[in-house]
Amino acid sequence: MNKARVESFSDGVFAFAITLLVLGVPIPDLVIVNDQQIRIGLVKSLHQLLPFITSFATIGIIWLNHHAMFHTVARVDHGALILNLLLLLVVSFIPFPTAVLGRYGALPFSAFFYGCVLTALGTTYSLLSFYILKSGLRREETPNGSSWDRLRNALGAAIYPIATVLSLRHPRVGVTIYFLLAAFYLLPARSFAINRAV
Amino acid sequence: MNKARVESFSDGVFAFAITLLVLGVPIPDLVIVNDQQIRIGLVKSLHQLLPFITSFATIGIIWLNHHAMFHTVARVDHGALILNLLLLLVVSFIPFPTAVLGRYGALPFSAFFYGCVLTALGTTYSLLSFYILKSGLRREETPNGSSWDRLRNALGAAIYPIATVLSLRHPRVGVTIYFLLAAFYLLPARSFAINRAV
Amino acid sequence: MNKARVESFSDGVFAFAITLLVLGVPIPDLVIVNDQQIRIGLVKSLHQLLPFITSFATIGIIWLNHHAMFHTVARVDHGALILNLLLLLVVSFIPFPTAVLGRYGALPFSAFFYGCVLTALGTTYSLLSFYILKSGLRREETPNGSSWDRLRNALGAAIYPIATVLSLRHPRVGVTIYFLLAAFYLLPARSFAINRAV
Amino acid sequence: MNKARVESFSDGVFAFAITLLVLGVPIPDLVIVNDQQIRIGLVKSLHQLLPFITSFATIGIIWLNHHAMFHTVARVDHGALILNLLLLLVVSFIPFPTAVLGRYGALPFSAFFYGCVLTALGTTYSLLSFYILKSGLRREETPNGSSWDRLRNALGAAIYPIATVLSLRHPRVGVTIYFLLAAFYLLPARSFAINRAV
Repeated sequence: MNKARVESFSDGVFAFAITLLVLGVPIPDLVIVNDQQIRIGLVKSLHQLLPFITSFATIGIIWLNHHAMFHTVARVDHGALILNLLLLLVVSFIPFPTAVLGRYGALPFSAFFYGCVLTALGTTYSLLSFYILKSGLRREETPNGSSWDRLRNALGAAIYPIATVLSLRHPRVGVTIYFLLAAFYLLPARSFAINRAV
Repeated sequence: MNKARVESFSDGVFAFAITLLVLGVPIPDLVIVNDQQIRIGLVKSLHQLLPFITSFATIGIIWLNHHAMFHTVARVDHGALILNLLLLLVVSFIPFPTAVLGRYGALPFSAFFYGCVLTALGTTYSLLSFYILKSGLRREETPNGSSWDRLRNALGAAIYPIATVLSLRHPRVGVTIYFLLAAFYLLPARSFAINRAV
Repeated sequence: MNKARVESFSDGVFAFAITLLVLGVPIPDLVIVNDQQIRIGLVKSLHQLLPFITSFATIGIIWLNHHAMFHTVARVDHGALILNLLLLLVVSFIPFPTAVLGRYGALPFSAFFYGCVLTALGTTYSLLSFYILKSGLRREETPNGSSWDRLRNALGAAIYPIATVLSLRHPRVGVTIYFLLAAFYLLPARSFAINRAV
Repeated sequence: MNKARVESFSDGVFAFAITLLVLGVPIPDLVIVNDQQIRIGLVKSLHQLLPFITSFATIGIIWLNHHAMFHTVARVDHGALILNLLLLLVVSFIPFPTAVLGRYGALPFSAFFYGCVLTALGTTYSLLSFYILKSGLRREETPNGSSWDRLRNALGAAIYPIATVLSLRHPRVGVTIYFLLAAFYLLPARSFAINRAV
């Protein structure tokens, strides 16, 4: 199995899923069409931009990490292909909870559901990276991440489910944490080296 | 005709069709917006996830096999291009029956229609692989599949139309069989070697 | 300007536009959900499949020809880039008249409008190929098409506008001609050599 | 980080966003389906084509410039990746204000909002090109743009916000200026050399 074509197919799904997110920003549905109504409608739509930006950043991060991960990979076997498809399944599903949040705002259950999908995203990504590490698919010279890297990844893995459960009580707080986590992982410098480590 | 560009165009259609599937998961249409309503609506949407996952897995499998098939191909002629377009026509159509199933559930005729499209997918794929085999487009050293491989492929080719007809009586059973077939073809190890064989 | 990246961007637009066509096949909008209603709805949707298939085949042909054309190109200048963008503008617009035809059937004006877009597609494609021929962007050894090729291309260029005008009187005949033209250009063997000639 | 994969991911988002624009051209919503109604509906839809064409041309220009910019780049660091994601965020958002303009026409606030997004597009693009220039990511032999180039870029950077504010009073004038700016940047010959300069 050609590693380059797995990467290009994955890139395609990442790029399309990230671009489909915009369909979840609801176009104002006006009964009376005038400037005041469009202003009210657009301001209301823009209130819903946070999930759009959060999903965009989250898919962007997973894409960056996916690139870095495959950079260390020497060959791809069937198990990695299946786990990669599982990751892409979750990635391609993200526009759905994003659109629900965008349409109805941060209600407890819609925020909880969004958090479940983000947690599933992190889990399938971890499964894939763990499999690649354990199956000896990486190139020999690839360094392991530092202990600081692992601490940070573990923190991320723990905060998503916590924020998901928290959303059932405080949906706005939950959505804000999802956004802050995405922003945190986008921070430059050392953070990237950490992400690069499986 | 450049084989690499046929592959990249096909990859684009596969990746895009697989990502468009999410538009078929119906966003709850709430009259009263509150947490209870969104919960009921989302649980109902999630009942419709099976066709989404089945179509995702099916397109994923066809993509894996398409890759493996083109790996054995030395050159592409006009007939292969046309048959490849025919396959992509069916692939790009899959979001439609998936969305119908997702919106109205497994009724006899919607499940039957979905099965017809999956059968057409298998048929066009078989046509393409048969044409490539018979037209001498493959590289010389490519091994043929074992007799076990052929048995398995023949089984798959037989079960799809049977499940399609069955759907007219037992739509839920039919949809479950479509899902199990997709899961079966995703099984690791030997199955992939089989798929790899035309 | 890198020819390979113009090709890959164009391939992306072709692949996405061809896959977006499916959104124009209208999902039945049922008030009462039962098997009889879904059957009636789906049969009605399938009556609308002809424009979907015609647009798919037409974009597929233009993509095949675009490939063949760029195969003869040695370098890309600004004029070719702009004309290529113009072609892609029309390609990316095709899902709109296709969806209108799919939703309301072959009425005189919707069939006429669809024909106008197909004529615009042929015209922008001819402009691009003519520009490439006259600007000396092709590789030196590229043969010109035979006189038979030119006759055939000229026939195609003439039939589209005729069928478009005809649609104002006989919309179903017009749509059928669009389909037959697409099928005609997909015919194997000699036809492709003709297409390959600019 | 592999420069080629950043380019291919970006190409995907550009190509996909440019193709999604068509979903913003509103399909006529007819109560009575006959030829007169479809004609009235389509003529009304075509009045809304200007934002579609403007957005297409604008994304096309940014894509051309993005290509030219990355042609001068020797390597990509984390800062460039993040700024590139920010640019793609704005690119992927463009279908939204385009669809709002297409659905409700050039009202003051919808034209203003569209202008804000175009201004954000220009700003994020400038940030990325400035960062690449200052961070020494370019290949050594890359020439800087001429002073005429800079003047022209500065003019563009100034006209977008002016037209945006103007839209609050004269929305149709604003939208026309956005279109003319896109057409201006598509002009051949010297203009492209200018664009090529960071």
